[in-house]
Amino acid sequence: MSLLLCLGDIDPVNWRKAFKAALPDHVDVVTRDDADFDPSAVRYMYVWKPAADAFDGLDNLEVIFSLGAGVDPIVAHPKLPRNVPLSRFVDEDLTTRMTDYVVAQVTLHQRQTTYYMALQKAREWVQYYPPAANECRVGIMGLGALGADAAEKLVGLGFTVLGWSRNHKDLPGVESFAGPGQLDAFLSKTDILVCLLPLTEDTRGMLDYELFTKLRRDGLKTGPVVVNAARGGHLIEKDLVRALEDGTLGAASLDVFEVEPLPGDSPLWAIENCLITPHIAAISSVHRGVRFVVDGIARHEAGEPLENLVDLDVGY
Amino acid sequence: MSLLLCLGDIDPVNWRKAFKAALPDHVDVVTRDDADFDPSAVRYMYVWKPAADAFDGLDNLEVIFSLGAGVDPIVAHPKLPRNVPLSRFVDEDLTTRMTDYVVAQVTLHQRQTTYYMALQKAREWVQYYPPAANECRVGIMGLGALGADAAEKLVGLGFTVLGWSRNHKDLPGVESFAGPGQLDAFLSKTDILVCLLPLTEDTRGMLDYELFTKLRRDGLKTGPVVVNAARGGHLIEKDLVRALEDGTLGAASLDVFEVEPLPGDSPLWAIENCLITPHIAAISSVHRGVRFVVDGIARHEAGEPLENLVDLDVGY
Repeated sequence: MSLLLCLGDIDPVNWRKAFKAALPDHVDVVTRDDADFDPSAVRYMYVWKPAADAFDGLDNLEVIFSLGAGVDPIVAHPKLPRNVPLSRFVDEDLTTRMTDYVVAQVTLHQRQTTYYMALQKAREWVQYYPPAANECRVGIMGLGALGADAAEKLVGLGFTVLGWSRNHKDLPGVESFAGPGQLDAFLSKTDILVCLLPLTEDTRGMLDYELFTKLRRDGLKTGPVVVNAARGGHLIEKDLVRALEDGTLGAASLDVFEVEPLPGDSPLWAIENCLITPHIAAISSVHRGVRFVVDGIARHEAGEPLENLVDLDVGY
Repeated sequence: MSLLLCLGDIDPVNWRKAFKAALPDHVDVVTRDDADFDPSAVRYMYVWKPAADAFDGLDNLEVIFSLGAGVDPIVAHPKLPRNVPLSRFVDEDLTTRMTDYVVAQVTLHQRQTTYYMALQKAREWVQYYPPAANECRVGIMGLGALGADAAEKLVGLGFTVLGWSRNHKDLPGVESFAGPGQLDAFLSKTDILVCLLPLTEDTRGMLDYELFTKLRRDGLKTGPVVVNAARGGHLIEKDLVRALEDGTLGAASLDVFEVEPLPGDSPLWAIENCLITPHIAAISSVHRGVRFVVDGIARHEAGEPLENLVDLDVGY
């Protein structure tokens, strides 16, 4: 039997080596490019951005493991075998790296860094004092493992933290809002909006111009800020460009985009109060990813329940 | 008897109003510009950057209160009456604002933000993954109220935190180094250096080219980083410019300068990996400053000890 690596644009060389060293002897590690690839021998699959033929011929597949915490490209795949359990990688290391990104962007915008960068460019000395953390409200959309950890760290730094999610969540120090009915109330209290939502049919394109107009306007000198560390599909990029240009938004940080790599002619590159990073907020390390799959296979073979099973109907 | 406001370049109007409302009836609030100013009536003084004549004729002065936590301009004044107790403002609000600044700069540099800003300008998509907080070492020079609070918050975010101070300090999760003999060992383990030292004869000009060469070189992709939130006098600016130009340093954040406002022709303005803010890291609020002085006067009149007394021989 075998574990099929299906890693999209990620080079599988290091992963293959690490899996070979860690898997039990009765499980081979294979890719579709192998000369002797036998789809019927595949029992397990490790997936990142599946290609069109990713699931073809896998008649004996028992478990799909997702390399990322976001499973939207897998759930949306038309040939996904929906009767096979899908377990997603929710890893402490990935979570803390995402929180690192969120804390860095939130504190950067709380301190109004893009405002001072513009002053620096103009060689102007203007002693504006930014708000303290406790005078600044951070609204986190999505309170799963990533959102909850970011919220905890931001509460620890003294920020006023609000959360919005599908269902009400009870997190220490976080004012919780749930569902479409409480979205506007959540937005009206938010200075810095952080998107950590799963990408589903309900959340696709949520971050649009109308939503931006509902954020709190009298909090930050620059105006409200959007940080998107979830998926490019959450954000309507042309709406963000418009909102940054007309002052509806004061600044933004984007790690993910509608098309990746971000095309060279995107207007986003040139907007100085829109900080762009190339989808590097958090990465699944080879070491931890291998352990996740090897542990999952052992659990499965021992008849134990798998961790972080995806509900295909809700999409995460 | 009176409290003399001596606030340098700060407009005293709001302070005067707030003091009038808060002081007991037997203490007037005065400035040297008042038509009926009587130096012999002055018992208390509230000082920020004292002018040359600040202390002239104050023969009945009993306590000097410093508006800032840094008392170097007062201690260095040639006419300071050295037998009068000097109490400096160490305030929780000022401390948390300073920590806000430090956390924002440290996380910004840990996430290698100036590197991505350069990529963005060039419209380049390079998926470099920055180190996690626990892979990044922050060295704090100065472990007084400000340094200790910043260290605590950075430990909470998972950073490896080192501290250097005149005497050994015992802070949870912080590796402590003390005195000139342990400075090189401290620097060799530091990726991001944060200066929160008091400005004294021992610390003036400490941040020079030679010191920059001793920082850890294999930690951050950009190379080591310097954050100065203490006093402009700690840093030799031409050495910083040289170190940023030749790659000895990867980036810097400066809130304070040798001359303030920073002159329009300073080369610092144009260095894109040197983030400049106009001495706004932390401010003493009128409300808190007034409470500090009013409480101090009440303590003094009740014969109780004053808080945060400065030792003029060590300079803080």
